[in-house]
Amino acid sequence: MDQHTQLPKVGMVGGGQLARMTHQATIALGQSLRVLAESETDGAALVAADVQIGSHTDLDALRAFAKDCDAVTFDHEHVPGEHIRALAAEGVNVQPSADALIYAQDKRAMRERLTELGAPVPRWAPVGSLADVEAFGLPCVLKATRGGYDGKGVWVVSTADEAAEVVAGGVGLIAEEKVELARELSAVVARSPFGQVAAYPVVETVQRDGICVEVIAPAPGLSEDLGAQAQRLAVSLAGELGVTGIMAVELFETADGRILVNELAMRPHNSGHWTIEGARTSQFEQHLRGVLDYPLGETALTAKWVVMANVLGGEPGGMRVDERLHHLMAGDPGAKVHLYGKAVRPGRKIGHVTVLGDDLDGLRARAQAAAIWLRDGVGHIEH
Amino acid sequence: MDQHTQLPKVGMVGGGQLARMTHQATIALGQSLRVLAESETDGAALVAADVQIGSHTDLDALRAFAKDCDAVTFDHEHVPGEHIRALAAEGVNVQPSADALIYAQDKRAMRERLTELGAPVPRWAPVGSLADVEAFGLPCVLKATRGGYDGKGVWVVSTADEAAEVVAGGVGLIAEEKVELARELSAVVARSPFGQVAAYPVVETVQRDGICVEVIAPAPGLSEDLGAQAQRLAVSLAGELGVTGIMAVELFETADGRILVNELAMRPHNSGHWTIEGARTSQFEQHLRGVLDYPLGETALTAKWVVMANVLGGEPGGMRVDERLHHLMAGDPGAKVHLYGKAVRPGRKIGHVTVLGDDLDGLRARAQAAAIWLRDGVGHIEH
Repeated sequence: MDQHTQLPKVGMVGGGQLARMTHQATIALGQSLRVLAESETDGAALVAADVQIGSHTDLDALRAFAKDCDAVTFDHEHVPGEHIRALAAEGVNVQPSADALIYAQDKRAMRERLTELGAPVPRWAPVGSLADVEAFGLPCVLKATRGGYDGKGVWVVSTADEAAEVVAGGVGLIAEEKVELARELSAVVARSPFGQVAAYPVVETVQRDGICVEVIAPAPGLSEDLGAQAQRLAVSLAGELGVTGIMAVELFETADGRILVNELAMRPHNSGHWTIEGARTSQFEQHLRGVLDYPLGETALTAKWVVMANVLGGEPGGMRVDERLHHLMAGDPGAKVHLYGKAVRPGRKIGHVTVLGDDLDGLRARAQAAAIWLRDGVGHIEH
Repeated sequence: MDQHTQLPKVGMVGGGQLARMTHQATIALGQSLRVLAESETDGAALVAADVQIGSHTDLDALRAFAKDCDAVTFDHEHVPGEHIRALAAEGVNVQPSADALIYAQDKRAMRERLTELGAPVPRWAPVGSLADVEAFGLPCVLKATRGGYDGKGVWVVSTADEAAEVVAGGVGLIAEEKVELARELSAVVARSPFGQVAAYPVVETVQRDGICVEVIAPAPGLSEDLGAQAQRLAVSLAGELGVTGIMAVELFETADGRILVNELAMRPHNSGHWTIEGARTSQFEQHLRGVLDYPLGETALTAKWVVMANVLGGEPGGMRVDERLHHLMAGDPGAKVHLYGKAVRPGRKIGHVTVLGDDLDGLRARAQAAAIWLRDGVGHIEH
């Protein structure tokens, strides 16, 4: 409880863009997010008043950080489960719990639990050797059980030689069938400790080179039945796994019209950034409501279509980012830009742009043009 | 320019809720607002990373604060003009300039200049003595030329005795006719140093005891002609006075269908808080764009009607604010709450609530119920 405002204090472990945008939402609720950042130049550390510098793998740093927090939550999945358990045992209100978070940390644990629950998943098996992979069948997808993101930790292997190389890397692996994808979807839900659940409309996520580049809300042309299935699945998993705060269920929509769970994330998620302007309650506010056991907010869309495009860092040189921003604002005064306070490196997510309205094709063109313009300083800004 | 992000650094003098909400908007633009606060418990000081503690009347504090800022702007009108001129002379980019800001600081200067410009104002005169007031005519309204807000510094006087008492107070005064009001309106515009201007829809402001309690966007039943007149007037004044950033033109709509300028504010304004969710570009982002000479953002409404109600502090005792917030969230999951991090004192503005939609009567009832609930912890939360 904050002494001055008599309002709760939430601590978020990790100082990236998710904590940065959560801080914005925290301010509206009368609070100020406490952030555990690795560096003073982390995106959230640049903007939040209450920042501690330390490692999320250092239990003493976590203990000091959690002191006086009404709830502690996460901007990433990398806090060791044993540390979370230690904090909880000492009375810290950690949301989500280690028991839930494991399914966002460890792909094998997630696949095992979802299989037990009868949730639709790709055919999969744990693999420890080349023989296991060959027994599973080639071609297949090998995934590191821990630590992958943005396409890292995922290998599509067609031959024994390729598989052998991945196995030789020595990381824990699972094998999965290579699914015939129609596209990827995401079902974002929130759940409170009390058990209230709220679901956002299911969105389409467009990936390029394993990185999400575009999110369309709601997913265009998604059958009502499949959309409802996806929401029900996400709501049911949130309950079964004991999730609190936001959970994103990344889904494959198969060529034959089924949905399969790809991954789980238990924190605000890139596939929910559109909610800042595009839903009545942003995923960041919703995450706070969830972890504080506040009643959840409305998830309705604020426009017919909402399109978000990630802004990646471009090659060095050319116009400064703020000059690019100038031109974008002049060309598209309705585009909502979010920059994360990061130094530009090629391919790094440095921000996102959201546009809303009635004309989906026009919105997609605007979002894409804005993102390319901010990345490269070239192109034609649509409006 | 921020060394890490290579993005501009804006400094805002004053650490109240306007700076607090401006900081939220600054974060989206990749920046972090620098705040000059009087105390560490000022609303903005509680949430911003880059806070200096000092007085806005201390030129050395202002100088230190302005160092490395790409633009310096204000959360209130109380910085002495000579300090602003001194900073500007030393090369600080102050927006708006002292030459513009005087018309928001000094009601006599404002009335004189607006009269010169032929803008519609109530009949008025400077008054230095009781004889001046009697010559002007009673009853009338006496206004302190400097420092008034929320009904303070305004006296409606009917008799010579009442007028004598105000004159004896020794503050600079003007006298104004008591206008036959139909209601009060506000025309919020933004202007950049380049000269671009953007106007928000004209809103109705509802006052109680001199304090704005409710804002309705757009002003219900306002004739197209009068709305356009009000916007043109505000746009023209912004240009004539050399305003940069946001200017709110507080207007009287008279019983006989004219508009008269009441006051000017040159900063984000209570009558523009609805823009956070209710307009494509919030007044806080727009103010930043204006003072940074960025192109201005779209001002279109995001819903048919937007209603904002101020939340005042209630009497001590009863439920804590966060418990009240719980109940409000349960009863009205679509209400957008903004709390300012202030300790509760009766009658003090501690936050606001915004609701959006198609049914104006329903929205007004919801906003009012939410504000009363947060103030008193009693009543029925509409939804």
